[in-house]
Amino acid sequence: MPTILGQNQYGKAESRVVRITRDGRTHHIKDLNVSVALSGDMADVHHSGSNTHVLPTDTTKNTVYAFAKEHGIESAEQFGIHLARHFVTGQEPIHRARIRIEEYAWERIDTSDGMAPDGEVWSGTAEQPRHSFVRTGQETRLAQITFDGDSWEVVSGLTDLTVLNSTNSEFWGYAKDKYTTLREAYDRILATDVSARWRYRWSGNGSSDGSSDGSGDGSGDGVPMPDWDESYAQTKKHILRTFAETYSLSLQQSLYQMGTSVIENRGEIEEIRFSLPNKHHFLVDLEPFGLKNDNEVYFAADRPYGLIEATVLRDGAEPRIPVDLTRLR
Amino acid sequence: MPTILGQNQYGKAESRVVRITRDGRTHHIKDLNVSVALSGDMADVHHSGSNTHVLPTDTTKNTVYAFAKEHGIESAEQFGIHLARHFVTGQEPIHRARIRIEEYAWERIDTSDGMAPDGEVWSGTAEQPRHSFVRTGQETRLAQITFDGDSWEVVSGLTDLTVLNSTNSEFWGYAKDKYTTLREAYDRILATDVSARWRYRWSGNGSSDGSSDGSGDGSGDGVPMPDWDESYAQTKKHILRTFAETYSLSLQQSLYQMGTSVIENRGEIEEIRFSLPNKHHFLVDLEPFGLKNDNEVYFAADRPYGLIEATVLRDGAEPRIPVDLTRLR
Amino acid sequence: MPTILGQNQYGKAESRVVRITRDGRTHHIKDLNVSVALSGDMADVHHSGSNTHVLPTDTTKNTVYAFAKEHGIESAEQFGIHLARHFVTGQEPIHRARIRIEEYAWERIDTSDGMAPDGEVWSGTAEQPRHSFVRTGQETRLAQITFDGDSWEVVSGLTDLTVLNSTNSEFWGYAKDKYTTLREAYDRILATDVSARWRYRWSGNGSSDGSSDGSGDGSGDGVPMPDWDESYAQTKKHILRTFAETYSLSLQQSLYQMGTSVIENRGEIEEIRFSLPNKHHFLVDLEPFGLKNDNEVYFAADRPYGLIEATVLRDGAEPRIPVDLTRLR
Amino acid sequence: MPTILGQNQYGKAESRVVRITRDGRTHHIKDLNVSVALSGDMADVHHSGSNTHVLPTDTTKNTVYAFAKEHGIESAEQFGIHLARHFVTGQEPIHRARIRIEEYAWERIDTSDGMAPDGEVWSGTAEQPRHSFVRTGQETRLAQITFDGDSWEVVSGLTDLTVLNSTNSEFWGYAKDKYTTLREAYDRILATDVSARWRYRWSGNGSSDGSSDGSGDGSGDGVPMPDWDESYAQTKKHILRTFAETYSLSLQQSLYQMGTSVIENRGEIEEIRFSLPNKHHFLVDLEPFGLKNDNEVYFAADRPYGLIEATVLRDGAEPRIPVDLTRLR
Repeated sequence: MPTILGQNQYGKAESRVVRITRDGRTHHIKDLNVSVALSGDMADVHHSGSNTHVLPTDTTKNTVYAFAKEHGIESAEQFGIHLARHFVTGQEPIHRARIRIEEYAWERIDTSDGMAPDGEVWSGTAEQPRHSFVRTGQETRLAQITFDGDSWEVVSGLTDLTVLNSTNSEFWGYAKDKYTTLREAYDRILATDVSARWRYRWSGNGSSDGSSDGSGDGSGDGVPMPDWDESYAQTKKHILRTFAETYSLSLQQSLYQMGTSVIENRGEIEEIRFSLPNKHHFLVDLEPFGLKNDNEVYFAADRPYGLIEATVLRDGAEPRIPVDLTRLR
Repeated sequence: MPTILGQNQYGKAESRVVRITRDGRTHHIKDLNVSVALSGDMADVHHSGSNTHVLPTDTTKNTVYAFAKEHGIESAEQFGIHLARHFVTGQEPIHRARIRIEEYAWERIDTSDGMAPDGEVWSGTAEQPRHSFVRTGQETRLAQITFDGDSWEVVSGLTDLTVLNSTNSEFWGYAKDKYTTLREAYDRILATDVSARWRYRWSGNGSSDGSSDGSGDGSGDGVPMPDWDESYAQTKKHILRTFAETYSLSLQQSLYQMGTSVIENRGEIEEIRFSLPNKHHFLVDLEPFGLKNDNEVYFAADRPYGLIEATVLRDGAEPRIPVDLTRLR
Repeated sequence: MPTILGQNQYGKAESRVVRITRDGRTHHIKDLNVSVALSGDMADVHHSGSNTHVLPTDTTKNTVYAFAKEHGIESAEQFGIHLARHFVTGQEPIHRARIRIEEYAWERIDTSDGMAPDGEVWSGTAEQPRHSFVRTGQETRLAQITFDGDSWEVVSGLTDLTVLNSTNSEFWGYAKDKYTTLREAYDRILATDVSARWRYRWSGNGSSDGSSDGSGDGSGDGVPMPDWDESYAQTKKHILRTFAETYSLSLQQSLYQMGTSVIENRGEIEEIRFSLPNKHHFLVDLEPFGLKNDNEVYFAADRPYGLIEATVLRDGAEPRIPVDLTRLR
Repeated sequence: MPTILGQNQYGKAESRVVRITRDGRTHHIKDLNVSVALSGDMADVHHSGSNTHVLPTDTTKNTVYAFAKEHGIESAEQFGIHLARHFVTGQEPIHRARIRIEEYAWERIDTSDGMAPDGEVWSGTAEQPRHSFVRTGQETRLAQITFDGDSWEVVSGLTDLTVLNSTNSEFWGYAKDKYTTLREAYDRILATDVSARWRYRWSGNGSSDGSSDGSGDGSGDGVPMPDWDESYAQTKKHILRTFAETYSLSLQQSLYQMGTSVIENRGEIEEIRFSLPNKHHFLVDLEPFGLKNDNEVYFAADRPYGLIEATVLRDGAEPRIPVDLTRLR
């Protein structure tokens, strides 16, 4: 046969798991969308349909739910580490596992100056409902955990974080050819939906010998496992702050500043890649109506949009985040 | 010809307007999606294609942008009132205008403990960027303003406000037939995406004679025009709080409590309608894995979902909000 | 309590049922998305949470699947009639049932000049696989069946049927005001996504006494039950053909022609309503590049878009299709 | 500065171009969504915001529209070749261009047995409207053209081609662990949305010296440029036919058969990658209702779904299609 099997992977995608933890009357919630992709010795199933080496995708889904109970969900990254180790160490034909997770954020519903159903004023936070949540709806947090039995790669990120500066953005001095009609802008709106992925330096020590905390951070390379939640919160903060504080001459410059801010401030991160649509806000021409539009009224366009993508690396780091965060389509 | 023209309307849908207001270094943003629907003496265009009575949809779009400059955008409702009055009073063949608006919320990017680009610590809020925003991403605010030259109808609302109670919800004692297999639940998750529309008592006095403030609130009926933003904020608060504080025996009961809370607390509102998908969170059976699932691990399902819809009215009010908030499809 | 319960309905939405019928080696497929909405004596569940009158939405979903087996799916409309009758006649507190169905079309995969896996040429259609399908992906068929125990209302329709005429469309002679800047067009592209709903004259005789075929077409009013599939196919054909053959001076005119064609040719239909977005295709200005654009190159815009909506009625018919086919949002 | 700029690219995404070609009364339509991504000597704009090397994304959009006029759109691939060559050879700092195109298919509206508006029967196809189209709505055709000034890479594909076999699919004999609960299936529905990308052997000769036909197929390597449309049509046919004709023991096996069929029959293609969601159709348990479900009634599930991905290569070919066709998210 003149054909060869190339890279392949399989698993259950988009298992939606919600984990409630009860601390007396106070509840906590974790809301994830988990996708499993397994690779290994899978030639037979492709060639002949023999499923001997195939752990069913249904089983990978069951494992997500069982682990949510057995291990809890401390963070998306830690949960993914548990899962990836399990698949690679539990099934001989599986040599590599990649877990991708989306996390949706919730906050408590505030009823602090509310009335109890019986008409009494809540006497304090202790009396408030502690099991009621509203989805924040802002960005979606992302995590990707890959394990090949030897080393770990963790890429975290976020998507759909929509930001806008209503001034301090210019665009001029660009190259021109015969198809250039754009007028230079000295005060424009700069807006984008931030999509970012950052890769951690930590790669574990590859051990899977059951260290007591199950964290896999034997740290043979001396790199401690990050505090995933703290790292996420701080990285998001640096991205937002730098976007706000940069006087921008191009979206590329803003992107690079954001990346630099993250790399300089977060020693645990080796590289970060951004995919930034330039959400055009066109100044509307109001002159036909006898009106002057002094950077006040804009048309927010859908398509087409500029798309600016780049990786920022720590000096000496190897680029490993794929070029296309968005789909090939 | 045996055919008759029935109800008809036309206009430009989904004009995306962003309005920036500059107060020194402090900027303010309004971000709307505006749809115009006009009705009136439109038989000719349908029968023969004569456009004599047809103000182009392109013109209705232009008007949205021009009015954003001329009148500003105080609130979605007030902006819609300006537009509806203009179309009905400005073109003789147009007898009725309905303006629908979606509003997206933004909040300032907080850089309060940030570093200035030159390395100095921000000395205070006065030094922070005041032109940088991040979309909150939670619910979308809605407004619909209808004017027929005589009276006004304002229906405001919200959609995609996702809430969840992790306890204090039961469902049992229901009717059963031969197709009933559901097991009774004494402690379940209750979650929904709140979609609500509420109608205001205010209907103006129908005057369009150019009252000085342009508000149309001649108030022949003695009903003052509401403070739209305050009313929105309080109504949302009552919905959230009542959802959280209701011990629920059915989603219908929670719905009615939410509606009652709004009607009782907001005298300016005559009726409110909810469309509440019951976002099922199924307890995962972990027994095959030797695990007990004590209301901890849930599968968040997509489809099918229960759909609970009802109107709650002030005693004596006439129901006018259409039954189907969601599309016929 | 100063609040009153208004219109309310509940049920399971979007149950996805696929029904395979095997006729020897030849299989047939029906692919539906079914939503149930029930109304009746439901005050208690709203006021107190008593579910005594509430048949669970889970049961309505089970019924959809059970009926797919018991009755088969002859057509979306016939299937909805079975369901609606069952809910209204089966549960005393339920006074009204509305069934909404989306249907997705499939066609057989053609392997007629294909090779059998063993290398032999297929000897004829009898040897071809008769169990393999590809989704056509064009419009979605819609049906809504309502029964109140007494009479029936069937509204069928379609959505997302995208059509385009590259000439024979003009737009000029329209009303102008100070905000009008549009230039008249004497040869433009006319494109829209047709969304239509049509109501049938048939209303059954309201009997639910178990006529042998379960069709409910006792026809006390002398109106025979339509052939639903034939009616759908012909109505779609009239819409497409009339769109193509109309020399259009406005989208309203094309709409009215399409409606008239359906009413005149299909005696079983009383009224039809269209919601037609004017999908703007703007001629691109190529003059800056020294090129003449002779109606050749267009920019297909997303938003905003014109939205043209109207009902066409048979003379004497009562309009009953709601004004807004699209959602209030 | 401890940060380094990694891979970067920019350009205008999703320019929607519709090209009409008039051949007397017969019109032809091409409907594309074109995304441009340029790379090269772009350090300055990232580091300092200097746009000297930056051809504006607005210009790349203008070029798409101008080229639709100047060169026409013979096929998506040929159009992309024109664009990619232009950007790389026209601007010194630009070293690489990647053009991605989605193409939407239209077919003529058939009015063959229709009536002319004046009541006459159409006398033949010559009299039928030849400027009226309906979107087919099935799969979206994809093309990606990359040029680095030296060699070409063309990857074509399709997405959202939904197929289903109602029998001849089994799944059993799989690996089991403590989390496995799935029951073996000996007759199941197999359904998927085919997403495929295939890479052509042709890489041009890298010349950009203005060969008369502008095709860049100097063919220094002796590989002729494919007939893009014929290749697309045949590849789709092989995918559909093989899906239909394969008796499947796993979706992986079907995938490999589809890939093999393409590689064996289309000599111009070097590799093909599939991303196949296993769209689960679960047999509904009707026993509680006293009914037997003999592979007749299925619940079509949304999430989670199995996801099967693999590359099939011609022996000796180098794999170059990225692993993740779907987005990282």
